[in-house]
Amino acid sequence: MTYKAPSQAGPHYVPPLRVSHNGLQNGQMEPLIYRPAARSHRLPMDRVDGELGDMDKNGQQFTTELGSPLANGKMHLHSSVKRKLAEEKGYVFDKRLRYNVRQNESNCRFRDIVVRKEEGFTHVLLSSQTTDNNALTPEIMKEVCRALGNAAADDSKLLLLSSVGTVFCSGLEPSYLIGRLSTDRRKESSRIADAVRDFVLAFIHFKKPIVVAINGPALGLGASILPLCDVVWASERAWFQTPCAALHLTPSGCSSYTFPQILGVALANEMLFCGRKLTAQEACSRGLVSQVFWPTTFNQEVMLRVKEMASCNAVVLEESKCLVRSIVMSVLEDVNEKECQMLKQLWCSTKGLEALFSYLHNKTSEK
Amino acid sequence: MTYKAPSQAGPHYVPPLRVSHNGLQNGQMEPLIYRPAARSHRLPMDRVDGELGDMDKNGQQFTTELGSPLANGKMHLHSSVKRKLAEEKGYVFDKRLRYNVRQNESNCRFRDIVVRKEEGFTHVLLSSQTTDNNALTPEIMKEVCRALGNAAADDSKLLLLSSVGTVFCSGLEPSYLIGRLSTDRRKESSRIADAVRDFVLAFIHFKKPIVVAINGPALGLGASILPLCDVVWASERAWFQTPCAALHLTPSGCSSYTFPQILGVALANEMLFCGRKLTAQEACSRGLVSQVFWPTTFNQEVMLRVKEMASCNAVVLEESKCLVRSIVMSVLEDVNEKECQMLKQLWCSTKGLEALFSYLHNKTSEK
Amino acid sequence: MTYKAPSQAGPHYVPPLRVSHNGLQNGQMEPLIYRPAARSHRLPMDRVDGELGDMDKNGQQFTTELGSPLANGKMHLHSSVKRKLAEEKGYVFDKRLRYNVRQNESNCRFRDIVVRKEEGFTHVLLSSQTTDNNALTPEIMKEVCRALGNAAADDSKLLLLSSVGTVFCSGLEPSYLIGRLSTDRRKESSRIADAVRDFVLAFIHFKKPIVVAINGPALGLGASILPLCDVVWASERAWFQTPCAALHLTPSGCSSYTFPQILGVALANEMLFCGRKLTAQEACSRGLVSQVFWPTTFNQEVMLRVKEMASCNAVVLEESKCLVRSIVMSVLEDVNEKECQMLKQLWCSTKGLEALFSYLHNKTSEK
Repeated sequence: MTYKAPSQAGPHYVPPLRVSHNGLQNGQMEPLIYRPAARSHRLPMDRVDGELGDMDKNGQQFTTELGSPLANGKMHLHSSVKRKLAEEKGYVFDKRLRYNVRQNESNCRFRDIVVRKEEGFTHVLLSSQTTDNNALTPEIMKEVCRALGNAAADDSKLLLLSSVGTVFCSGLEPSYLIGRLSTDRRKESSRIADAVRDFVLAFIHFKKPIVVAINGPALGLGASILPLCDVVWASERAWFQTPCAALHLTPSGCSSYTFPQILGVALANEMLFCGRKLTAQEACSRGLVSQVFWPTTFNQEVMLRVKEMASCNAVVLEESKCLVRSIVMSVLEDVNEKECQMLKQLWCSTKGLEALFSYLHNKTSEK
Repeated sequence: MTYKAPSQAGPHYVPPLRVSHNGLQNGQMEPLIYRPAARSHRLPMDRVDGELGDMDKNGQQFTTELGSPLANGKMHLHSSVKRKLAEEKGYVFDKRLRYNVRQNESNCRFRDIVVRKEEGFTHVLLSSQTTDNNALTPEIMKEVCRALGNAAADDSKLLLLSSVGTVFCSGLEPSYLIGRLSTDRRKESSRIADAVRDFVLAFIHFKKPIVVAINGPALGLGASILPLCDVVWASERAWFQTPCAALHLTPSGCSSYTFPQILGVALANEMLFCGRKLTAQEACSRGLVSQVFWPTTFNQEVMLRVKEMASCNAVVLEESKCLVRSIVMSVLEDVNEKECQMLKQLWCSTKGLEALFSYLHNKTSEK
Repeated sequence: MTYKAPSQAGPHYVPPLRVSHNGLQNGQMEPLIYRPAARSHRLPMDRVDGELGDMDKNGQQFTTELGSPLANGKMHLHSSVKRKLAEEKGYVFDKRLRYNVRQNESNCRFRDIVVRKEEGFTHVLLSSQTTDNNALTPEIMKEVCRALGNAAADDSKLLLLSSVGTVFCSGLEPSYLIGRLSTDRRKESSRIADAVRDFVLAFIHFKKPIVVAINGPALGLGASILPLCDVVWASERAWFQTPCAALHLTPSGCSSYTFPQILGVALANEMLFCGRKLTAQEACSRGLVSQVFWPTTFNQEVMLRVKEMASCNAVVLEESKCLVRSIVMSVLEDVNEKECQMLKQLWCSTKGLEALFSYLHNKTSEK
């Protein structure tokens, strides 16, 4: 099963997202792990990041995209039992890493994200253990909401959002969708749509500036939420795609409003209807991204700027964001509501669901 | 009489639009033919399209810009009588073509456009027989409205709009304006402004995605309506100009709203006030156009993508468009109403009309 | 004291703005002169304009950036007394110039701007005598408002705004802010915020097209007002920066609304929060600027186009602007009101003021 690759030339292609069949078929209500056991199925990226260690490659101490070692590490769990065990123990351990995970209060509360309290700002990293390619499930989205809630209340002046690994975020996990919707269409379509709505609302309502650092591909909802963030810095390695129509989905994350506003209706629709993929440079020249940096110095450039920004007056930052955002706040709330209603309807209707299933099934059997 | 050429360097220039004086002076209410009889007066294009046959050049079988032979052909009628005759017979024939026009139901209902029902989509081609350079008259605009109405009701998933010839659309026909407004200013200014309003409304209200393929220059109203379409693909050969102020016209087609939204107020106003011409690449980098293709493969690229888009789920396409458009629908309706009111006032006022006439007269005598 | 230089590479840097300490400390209510007496302190520009005479360099007849001799010349007054004297005499004189200033009615009414009535348009030039780098004080802003009021009432079809010197406008004068706010925080914060509000409103409400020619750096409020103008032409030498957060200020000039609209929220916020500097080319490709011209022919290019635009019909120009602007008029009024309320609060609060002072003090002591 892959995201639909558009018919454009280019070195990039959309990563294949594997279905973890146990999750799909047993209809378990417990959080499922969508990460495939065999690592040879991992996302093949056209350019492999040399300097950022991937624990799968060498088993050495693993570092996040943004430079310092991850407190909770990156886990490879082959069953929900193992996961459960790890959680109960209050720490995670992967033998292949030979790496003792330091655990602190903020990290132990989250499984699929890492939260770091830095001087003047909070750093949230997507680091999904239950899905591949930082794909989103309702559970992961709830963790992000909780992290945003915490950062709103503490003394952070701003929030930095980034990702561990080579993919920023691949959007909603299709295998999760299929698994749940085939179990209880009516109930699950509501539950998932509500989770998307709350996730997007958390971004809309967050009052401090959100800086987002895009290290790699941002797909679907992972791309849609970028205009809800305030400053968007991207690595040359990043690219952007929202292949809604091809995936039998309607736009989400307020992209039906923000994309036309930012990119112009012609390009926005090409992205939403035709799955047009934008390179980092294109996204920057069209306004989705503030600035593009070389992959090798991306982390330093981002950290330098975030620290400088965090030295500004907190009131000035928050009030400036308020001035910029307050005028579109209610529009975004409405758009988000409508988009999620539409997704719910689509998932709830036999026809819409069939279309989604047949699309995903075709993709799977194509491989 | 020419559109005003702006003072910018560049290989392109705006095509001279000839007045067919019989149409201007006799005030006939029957549809007039503005195409000049002598073909030597045709629009001189800087790059002549080699592979797309123009029947005037060689009399061979003529093909449309988008590849397959046109069912209704391209006619050269030297009087409204001949036209009338052809219409009554239910088919058209041009001796120079040695080409028997195949006639089918949908084609015979239109004179200045061609409508093709393809698999999954409707293809509307501007192919004006009564004006040069696909200029618009109320009659032609009504044909487009009817075609859009039909496509809205049938099983098409989307609409493809393109043009026959080397010019996409040169906007309102100035000689028509002069001819009619000098006959009965009050009545005709209302009638023409209403036709513009309904034409623009037809685009605003069309619920399925509209893909537009711009093979050559798009001027005035022909450029203004592009932001009302959903995906805009252009050939390298296309360029865009809305020289409203220079033509003593105010903006139309909602461009007073959509152009600033898409291009930024600085460039939008330079286009509206100073007649700034945009190349295809400029229009693309500023958001008016989704993507630019090489002229030689333009048709294939467009068809490939349209067919792919037409394979998407119809509900998803329509609902996605609804999400993108519903939020600006009422704004666009208001803007269109105001713009057309302003045009009516301008055409109706002695002063406004004199300004338009003297401008067009000066242009004619300059030649 | 300097504007904060952002951490980006590039040949440009923000000009040092000197505090004239007499103005700061005595709290005089009379207009103060912030221009430093010694010319060696002048803004060092990376590229000195060779062909545009600076009277300080050679004492020859001085010409404005836009080509013709300035009627009121450029004054170098070393005390407010000398200034006062000059004003009472009704003319200005600078011995070093050996230049008798021709005085006409419109010029003698302004001190920090020059107003020229040209055929079909009014030309307003920022030429501040009381501040360096065309920085703005409430008094200068009031002069601009008066000039706009006059141009609205006379037979000009449009207004051309440009600057004398190498800097277009460096925004609010920080030394003025410090001087006044440290004298009477409550009263002065209201007075200055009201002056900003009225200045911005004058642009919002001006009904004829405003063309602005940016010969050099445009900073803070000097950059913020550009989207309120209609056509923006810039010299290659121009650059744009609104380092609000770094200066402990919130956005002004409606930039909290117009910048995200034009540049996209990602770049707009990078400018407002991180002080991102835009080159002329960047500003053009992102929509803030209509077109960029070479510095050597900038004046001619602008004048050519302005004259062409001034040959258009006045009603068409005004009604076109009305169509483009009326839809956002009330939004802009609201945004301006909110922005100025926020500035007032910030200046009025002990904390906000301390932050501004400490920032400016640090900058001064860094030198």
